[in-house]
Amino acid sequence: MTETTPRRRGRQLPTAEELRIWRDFIETAERLRSELASRLQSESSLSPGDYAVLLALSEAPESRMRSSELAAHIGWERSRLSHHLGRMERRGLIRREECATDNRGAEILLAPTGAEAFARSTVPHLRAVRELFVDALTPERLVTAGEIAAALRARLDGYGKE
Amino acid sequence: MTETTPRRRGRQLPTAEELRIWRDFIETAERLRSELASRLQSESSLSPGDYAVLLALSEAPESRMRSSELAAHIGWERSRLSHHLGRMERRGLIRREECATDNRGAEILLAPTGAEAFARSTVPHLRAVRELFVDALTPERLVTAGEIAAALRARLDGYGKE
Repeated sequence: MTETTPRRRGRQLPTAEELRIWRDFIETAERLRSELASRLQSESSLSPGDYAVLLALSEAPESRMRSSELAAHIGWERSRLSHHLGRMERRGLIRREECATDNRGAEILLAPTGAEAFARSTVPHLRAVRELFVDALTPERLVTAGEIAAALRARLDGYGKE
Repeated sequence: MTETTPRRRGRQLPTAEELRIWRDFIETAERLRSELASRLQSESSLSPGDYAVLLALSEAPESRMRSSELAAHIGWERSRLSHHLGRMERRGLIRREECATDNRGAEILLAPTGAEAFARSTVPHLRAVRELFVDALTPERLVTAGEIAAALRARLDGYGKE
């Protein structure tokens, strides 16, 4: 980039209408996340993070995963996951089996209490997703919501390349 | 609701495809929020909460607002805002003038340090909104993103009524 290629488009600020849409979009997504989290918590005492971990384990072969795989699967940093798993282990939701022989981290197992909590929470949680997200949109808008998410994710993955 | 009106639709769970769109949507919105927050923090040492408060104050007449108005404006609980304002006051970003005569809360003033931090952060922040949100979408999808947010918000506002 030199002074003769000013990248004009990138320097412009959003219009008032673009900003209004941005704020609406990001605040509504946050309200939706927060409402679903609070229902999950009140119905099952699970946080969204607990739910994501239990979901991943319950779908894994033999309900067990390496912590490194689990971190990649749910999109968390390993250190964040490690702290979270410590709390889940103390509540009896999961078990950790340390593995000294390689560096893929401990093996994480779904504990019976965790399996039970997950089973109890999943139908009400999915019903809430349907009520507050799927049924709130027309089928056409639902498809577009998926396309919008894909376009935003592509930009997030690729920023810096441009 | 009686046993003869089973509200069938509401009882169905989302399909795999609907769930995929849901997860994409909510996770992408969260990544976007988090990326913008981390840029804001690294460029200006402001959190998104700080930014929201400074934005509201900078747009208010005489750069001052009652804490109750401010809470309503940015959509926070008063107790959450009060703790946050305490931290902002210690950093010199705002000032609070207690008001014993009514219950609308203290008057919150934009302090010079806060005005300066806001002014310094706003252009890079808006540029990031443009880069990561506005420019990532076609104009048509941007409009639909606004419509989707409005539909989801209407459902959140109205749930329980149905």
